[in-house]
Amino acid sequence: MSDTTAATAAAYDDLLDRVGRISNVAHAKELLSWDQQVTMPEAGTPARSRQLSALSAVEHDLLTADELDHLLGELEGADLDGDQRAVVREVRREQERAARVPTDLVERISAASSEALTAWREAREADDFDAFAPHLEELVELKRRYAEHVDPDRDPYEVLFEEYEPCLPLGHAEDVLTDLRDAVVPLVDEIRASDADLATDAFAGTFAADAQESLMREALDLLGYPWERGRLDEAPHPFSTGTAFDARITTRYDESEPIGGLLSTIHEFGHATYTLGLPDDAYGTPLGEARDLSIHESQSRLWENHVGRSTAFWEQFLPTVVEAFPDVGDVSVREAYEAVNAVDPSNLIRVEADELTYHLHIVLRFEIERDLIRGELAVADVPEVWNDRMESYLGIRPETDAEGCLQDVHWSHGAFGYFPTYSLGSVVAAQLYDAAERDIEGLEGRIRAAEFDRLHEWLTDNVHRHGKRYETNELVRRATGEDVTADAFVDYATAKYGELYGL
Amino acid sequence: MSDTTAATAAAYDDLLDRVGRISNVAHAKELLSWDQQVTMPEAGTPARSRQLSALSAVEHDLLTADELDHLLGELEGADLDGDQRAVVREVRREQERAARVPTDLVERISAASSEALTAWREAREADDFDAFAPHLEELVELKRRYAEHVDPDRDPYEVLFEEYEPCLPLGHAEDVLTDLRDAVVPLVDEIRASDADLATDAFAGTFAADAQESLMREALDLLGYPWERGRLDEAPHPFSTGTAFDARITTRYDESEPIGGLLSTIHEFGHATYTLGLPDDAYGTPLGEARDLSIHESQSRLWENHVGRSTAFWEQFLPTVVEAFPDVGDVSVREAYEAVNAVDPSNLIRVEADELTYHLHIVLRFEIERDLIRGELAVADVPEVWNDRMESYLGIRPETDAEGCLQDVHWSHGAFGYFPTYSLGSVVAAQLYDAAERDIEGLEGRIRAAEFDRLHEWLTDNVHRHGKRYETNELVRRATGEDVTADAFVDYATAKYGELYGL
Repeated sequence: MSDTTAATAAAYDDLLDRVGRISNVAHAKELLSWDQQVTMPEAGTPARSRQLSALSAVEHDLLTADELDHLLGELEGADLDGDQRAVVREVRREQERAARVPTDLVERISAASSEALTAWREAREADDFDAFAPHLEELVELKRRYAEHVDPDRDPYEVLFEEYEPCLPLGHAEDVLTDLRDAVVPLVDEIRASDADLATDAFAGTFAADAQESLMREALDLLGYPWERGRLDEAPHPFSTGTAFDARITTRYDESEPIGGLLSTIHEFGHATYTLGLPDDAYGTPLGEARDLSIHESQSRLWENHVGRSTAFWEQFLPTVVEAFPDVGDVSVREAYEAVNAVDPSNLIRVEADELTYHLHIVLRFEIERDLIRGELAVADVPEVWNDRMESYLGIRPETDAEGCLQDVHWSHGAFGYFPTYSLGSVVAAQLYDAAERDIEGLEGRIRAAEFDRLHEWLTDNVHRHGKRYETNELVRRATGEDVTADAFVDYATAKYGELYGL
Repeated sequence: MSDTTAATAAAYDDLLDRVGRISNVAHAKELLSWDQQVTMPEAGTPARSRQLSALSAVEHDLLTADELDHLLGELEGADLDGDQRAVVREVRREQERAARVPTDLVERISAASSEALTAWREAREADDFDAFAPHLEELVELKRRYAEHVDPDRDPYEVLFEEYEPCLPLGHAEDVLTDLRDAVVPLVDEIRASDADLATDAFAGTFAADAQESLMREALDLLGYPWERGRLDEAPHPFSTGTAFDARITTRYDESEPIGGLLSTIHEFGHATYTLGLPDDAYGTPLGEARDLSIHESQSRLWENHVGRSTAFWEQFLPTVVEAFPDVGDVSVREAYEAVNAVDPSNLIRVEADELTYHLHIVLRFEIERDLIRGELAVADVPEVWNDRMESYLGIRPETDAEGCLQDVHWSHGAFGYFPTYSLGSVVAAQLYDAAERDIEGLEGRIRAAEFDRLHEWLTDNVHRHGKRYETNELVRRATGEDVTADAFVDYATAKYGELYGL
């Protein structure tokens, strides 16, 4: 080994040590946040806020240390292999962003988010937007300041969007969303005009939470969730979190409607499969971390929609559901399929929305958060604007803010720019599922037979195992042969809903 | 304000910021450890080890930063009030110790402990000491190295003891333990020789875990555990952890014996009361942290033994127990009192031991760990030495290592020097309870009536609210009028067991 090679190897090892420490602090934060949402007693917030805030500050200090900057500089000029170059590229991106934002602002955002989470929970419970408004105002203000530090010359919303989707340009994302909206709006109109009568009440009744939990556990068993590496708990806003060693799912129980919770669990299972498919031996480096939110969401949507809402899955799983809930009586596979796929523009709640109108819920949030961040909308006006747009896009007006602008947890986390990644995830899911269908012989039959191994393998091989090796569009192109595009979703939705509604 | 005063105030604020961050990282570690023992799926260990190790390293780096050393130096020469001086004294003690130990050793100890915890759990399950031995060997070696860094010229065991009991000299502690042993050994002999026939089988039967859990929750309600600031979970080795905002208890269920678990829960409740009584507004500073282990243990022992094993408590609580476990039938208060206080030298398990023989379990562990650390005992010889000494002190020989040297979690945490603090806690508990009885009119009657407010107030006022304001012996002297001594415990035990066994 030459001196230069040895020096490069030593610098790269040093980089991995530093990055490993940063990554472990980030994972510790995630666990604290999981605990706050799942197990923490209610009075714990003040201490938890300060713990999260301290860890954010530590993470920030480690990421902005001069030594890390110098190491990156040295390695950017060195002879590295492709994986090493990817690691340096990803760390630099994070480091550069962090270096522009002062520590005390990071700490304030973390503390404000933690307090806001509790306030949001109480405000939603009490249907009291005014109680949440000061927290939202503070977060908007803090995040605008954040964006200004990153780049004072650019649209602050664009800057914040990159926090969640750093390597898919906002322009590309907007094109995809526009194509999607242009196709979905007329499709929903046609559906509204159709006189098809779907079996939407196939699962009417009352369903005890513990029976729902058992059913979810059976579904997770069937799909191949490795319990020794995970767990299922209840949380007000379901999420998943963790590492390749410990990828946890949370869910919710609605006693009047068991299928939404089941599909939500399958959704979170999809996220967990991604986390679990990341390479163990790259834990603590960018090659062991998921490629941003749209790709993460593509995994959850693929399992929720392309598997969990398919006829094949219901042929397999319906008997288990009927056994769990004998009161539902004599439901056919076709009725179950109709019930889980019916389009209902009158549903106010995003997480309960069908695959099509979901995207209009996203557009509404996208517009509101963008205008808030740009200073074109006041926090006090959010409830009215929300309700007006619900009326104009979906033809229905929420009667309470709890069912309106207080329904989502995201803004209480200070997450502005996050919502669009949900729709992007759906379109990538459709692309990936198409590609998997081409590559895996008889995929539909395998789902019907509850043989999910090949699909898990295909997704791990084409997506999970790469971590952040490739940037978003390249990852999708390598897996599917196409750039990120709405086409596959539009084809899928047109065919599916055309058949369902006789269009 | 003069320039000097202003500079001192600024330095002190800076100190509190730094100390707050260190404290919050430490609390984050505690939560990760709680999760590892209570909720983490089994495969999570490798990632959790690395997270804990990274946080330990971060804590160590923050504590040993030159800026902190300089601030402490500046403040040590400044005009401070008593509380400020106490804060500086406590931070300096920690800082000095940490500065002597290199970061990579701290990180190795943390990683080794985390791996050892899982190995210990499996080894105990399989009764396989050899599977745990390499982990124990590694930890002994690492902790000896640790002690050598702190002070190469002193007994390494003394150095490690100070990690848990930094301001009670080992000499003072040994005197107390000697007095205690000299009194307990003859008392146990007399009891063995007595022909008293206590109602040891008052609670014989099989007791479902969920019924035990309900009973524990009723006991915690009665004692005044604030559920909005805590929770009760199961863990293989019960412990408590947390902050004044969130002080959690864990427990265990033995289906053949419900009272041990109940008293263990009351014990952990005692720890939690201390944590909950720390001043909220001093969170993140030494004035908001508990004074070391013997004082912590004095709180748990006071509630477990002086309350939970008293006639007055059983007059109050027995009907609730009988209601929870109707099968126990017609138990009198006297029988219950005898059952929870019977001395059984044949019990192999420390956490199930009675108040008297408990101290002999501690002596045995103290001797073994001291000899291990001093290099006078090989890890491979631990099982035999353990079993020999059990035979010589208690007249019984364990048949398995699971019931012998694998029964405790402590060494798997790398905690050598911790065990003596249990006996010290008992003697301080007796001192505090005596003082509380002098100060609170009709304390026994209050316990009988489940009126615990005055006792909580007395303990908060005399112990909890001070945090680390006073050093150990001073804290005890202020609360009780005496130095730390075994006398109160010996008097209490002589009277109690004299009456029980007709000595």
